[in-house]
Amino acid sequence: MEKTLKELAELVGGVVVGDPAILIRGVAGVKEAEEGEITFIANPKYLPLLPHSRASAAILSAKEAVEAKIPSIRVENPYLAFAKVLRLFSENSYQPCGIHPTACIDSSAMIGEQVSIHPFAVIGRQVRIGNRVQVYSGAFIGDFSHIGDGCIIYPNVTIYHHTVIGSSVIIHANTVIGSDGFGYVWNGEEHYKIPQVGRVVIEDGVEIGAGCTIDRGTMGDTVIRRGTKIDNLVQIAHNVVIGESSIIVSQVGISGSTELGKRVTLGGQVGVAGHLKIGDNATVAAKSGVSKNVPSNSLMAGPIARPIQEWRRSEASLRRLPELVEKIRKLQQKVQELEKKLQGAERE
Amino acid sequence: MEKTLKELAELVGGVVVGDPAILIRGVAGVKEAEEGEITFIANPKYLPLLPHSRASAAILSAKEAVEAKIPSIRVENPYLAFAKVLRLFSENSYQPCGIHPTACIDSSAMIGEQVSIHPFAVIGRQVRIGNRVQVYSGAFIGDFSHIGDGCIIYPNVTIYHHTVIGSSVIIHANTVIGSDGFGYVWNGEEHYKIPQVGRVVIEDGVEIGAGCTIDRGTMGDTVIRRGTKIDNLVQIAHNVVIGESSIIVSQVGISGSTELGKRVTLGGQVGVAGHLKIGDNATVAAKSGVSKNVPSNSLMAGPIARPIQEWRRSEASLRRLPELVEKIRKLQQKVQELEKKLQGAERE
Amino acid sequence: MEKTLKELAELVGGVVVGDPAILIRGVAGVKEAEEGEITFIANPKYLPLLPHSRASAAILSAKEAVEAKIPSIRVENPYLAFAKVLRLFSENSYQPCGIHPTACIDSSAMIGEQVSIHPFAVIGRQVRIGNRVQVYSGAFIGDFSHIGDGCIIYPNVTIYHHTVIGSSVIIHANTVIGSDGFGYVWNGEEHYKIPQVGRVVIEDGVEIGAGCTIDRGTMGDTVIRRGTKIDNLVQIAHNVVIGESSIIVSQVGISGSTELGKRVTLGGQVGVAGHLKIGDNATVAAKSGVSKNVPSNSLMAGPIARPIQEWRRSEASLRRLPELVEKIRKLQQKVQELEKKLQGAERE
Repeated sequence: MEKTLKELAELVGGVVVGDPAILIRGVAGVKEAEEGEITFIANPKYLPLLPHSRASAAILSAKEAVEAKIPSIRVENPYLAFAKVLRLFSENSYQPCGIHPTACIDSSAMIGEQVSIHPFAVIGRQVRIGNRVQVYSGAFIGDFSHIGDGCIIYPNVTIYHHTVIGSSVIIHANTVIGSDGFGYVWNGEEHYKIPQVGRVVIEDGVEIGAGCTIDRGTMGDTVIRRGTKIDNLVQIAHNVVIGESSIIVSQVGISGSTELGKRVTLGGQVGVAGHLKIGDNATVAAKSGVSKNVPSNSLMAGPIARPIQEWRRSEASLRRLPELVEKIRKLQQKVQELEKKLQGAERE
Repeated sequence: MEKTLKELAELVGGVVVGDPAILIRGVAGVKEAEEGEITFIANPKYLPLLPHSRASAAILSAKEAVEAKIPSIRVENPYLAFAKVLRLFSENSYQPCGIHPTACIDSSAMIGEQVSIHPFAVIGRQVRIGNRVQVYSGAFIGDFSHIGDGCIIYPNVTIYHHTVIGSSVIIHANTVIGSDGFGYVWNGEEHYKIPQVGRVVIEDGVEIGAGCTIDRGTMGDTVIRRGTKIDNLVQIAHNVVIGESSIIVSQVGISGSTELGKRVTLGGQVGVAGHLKIGDNATVAAKSGVSKNVPSNSLMAGPIARPIQEWRRSEASLRRLPELVEKIRKLQQKVQELEKKLQGAERE
Repeated sequence: MEKTLKELAELVGGVVVGDPAILIRGVAGVKEAEEGEITFIANPKYLPLLPHSRASAAILSAKEAVEAKIPSIRVENPYLAFAKVLRLFSENSYQPCGIHPTACIDSSAMIGEQVSIHPFAVIGRQVRIGNRVQVYSGAFIGDFSHIGDGCIIYPNVTIYHHTVIGSSVIIHANTVIGSDGFGYVWNGEEHYKIPQVGRVVIEDGVEIGAGCTIDRGTMGDTVIRRGTKIDNLVQIAHNVVIGESSIIVSQVGISGSTELGKRVTLGGQVGVAGHLKIGDNATVAAKSGVSKNVPSNSLMAGPIARPIQEWRRSEASLRRLPELVEKIRKLQQKVQELEKKLQGAERE
């Protein structure tokens, strides 16, 4: 596939500087790009690399007055424009491959049109699968689950019974949706298991990474709202609610019944205790432990999450501790000297 | 299914207050319950919600003199009673579905009665499977492994060879049991792999969450004792021993050869170093890092696990650090002033 | 299988002390060994156990002048010698079992000789599989991937398309290789997905534990170099490069585009931020968070990784904080007393 620079500029809503007729056949980083490819500079600190690039064109910010030797497209958000061009060149038009003869589909399941169900996938009783859905090899869709249009379920994903998944949801390999919440009550002799009879509900446009675990509600639902993106190896406990367009980075763990607002960001390896509320647009830095409610629009950090300025201050003073110890030692000395002098003065 | 309040009271060992003949068809939270359902109050702070509930009955603590407008069952432990009633209403009587024709079972395997072996499950050589066992789709049971009566092995679980699993064990989806321990010795050129020839032994009544990894012993066994419950994404290294009725919350990692006593609780994302001993009834708070032995009955917390009071004290003083810095500054000033005055006094 | 002590000494390059003709049929720990077995002492602190062992021979350090009542092999590195003897006694000679009739192999795939492809494995289009490769049940090898000679792919592993794997690589159960990197750009309305069109490249002799996730590059490759060993539940993000012979302990997370040098060691639950460089032979202690570049040969520790001595000093002063607070209180008192005395002296 080849596109003119003009066609790409139209795709990304940008302005061409230079020859709009040149042909582009791919996109690559500024160092890796070859002739015939378009590159991009999203961060101005990489601009000095541009003159050395072999790229035939570049996507540049309209804000900066960059003179480039090669033709360019000027846009407001070069990174977004790059993503759009990359998608154009990398997307294969979806070709449904139908239902593989080895897939095991219950006769009561309702399967949409233009689906791809790969070898050894298992579709349970009363399952409903939308149109253009891809279910890869070894994936398991439990009884009574619904999968909306255009979803991709990668290999060896396990979806327990009664799960509800919206449209355009992507679930990466070996992720588990709908396993039992971790609920027991001590009966004097043993941990008595509390049945987990709720569901998992995943709304439209959610993407979930590989190796994640999302437990079903004890009663009621665990909910991942529209447009939220979840990285790999994330744990989401029973009855958690994650608001829309949130970002949950890898290896985060969220304990039972905690609720996240909209556009929340949790950095890698963050842990959140149970029954908390995290407000809209809040951000928690990587590795932080959240043990209290987090207000909207706040930026938290530290092993026991605190407002980031507060945490930075105590981190800074922690580093000055050895210096403080020294100061106190000198003060003690000085005070002793003063004491002696004063005693001497009194004696005179 | 419908039960009278009297029947439920007998099930949970409680006393009926109000009409014992009313019919109950389900259980739900105090806010969600509908007419015909029973709700429960385990925490007294939710008692004010009770008058607004649409529930037809409630499970309440016998300790508190609560007057309820609706009939109730009074018990010692309302949460346990709730769990029992929930189990009553949610449990489907187990219907074995037999061995699916696509399951791949070695001819030398011994399979019990009333089992369910689902599509594409693989049962290796000399495997023994007890009665009423459920092996879900895509699960793999390696050669020479034993699975006791009444176990549930969820989809895409991998159990390596020679694993020993007791009765009534539940293993959630995509968990791995018996992978090689992480053992190498540097031979001057490369990390030389130490063969891992031990086993994993899991005793009766253990439940293991989704996406966990439990390594086999290098020599000897990795052991999970009776009644222990393990959450999702937990890592248990080679030759670890976990005592009975312990609780291991999500994303915990336990390093090689560490031994936990009975009724130990490890909070979420705790990490435990290798070759340690954690005593009976010890609790380690979430995200803590354990680098030394932990005595029985202790409660530990902090990035480097310490007795919780000790850790709280140093956390509190850490927060007062900026204030301390200010105090020291003032002291320095004061001492300088005193010095000057004293010099002045001497000169006079 | 039985071997004479002399034969074992030749295998490990050691010197026999005692009868070289005795027959050995296995290897075990000093406490567990039975007659006919050889044991080993790698750590001198376990030497006092040796006289009580039932072992028929022992592997001992040539450095220490140990007198043993039983015949022994003296070597430079007893632990390595033990590993070699253990491998000798535990290794089954590989018996290829061929391609199971239920495995689903695309007609365009090229399969080497002496392979074992187990039930329900899926091999995609244009895949190349080397000689003596074992692909276990439920494993998925995506289109256009290459697997070198002598690899072992355990059950339910998912390898996405276009992955390149060298020879003698071991990948444990339920690990995912080549899932999409976590890349989005906010377009004002939603997180717009950046296509992930790079690959994962794994070099010779790498071992990867169970339940890991290794994302493909956005553009360009995620690379694991020769001889690196990765424990369970490790997350490696897009475009990470890990140098050769590194050790990555369980539950580590490495963020996008970070590069590790050769022989780097990351302790359990370490988190590394994105776009960093970690130098050759660097070690990061367990649970540490790395937010800056790490120089070669350094040893880092602490929640915000710092040189270990520096971190230990501030940990030590943190523990002395309550004591410091007390010192400051006393100083304040003393200074007040001095002040009063001085005022008194002046008045006189």
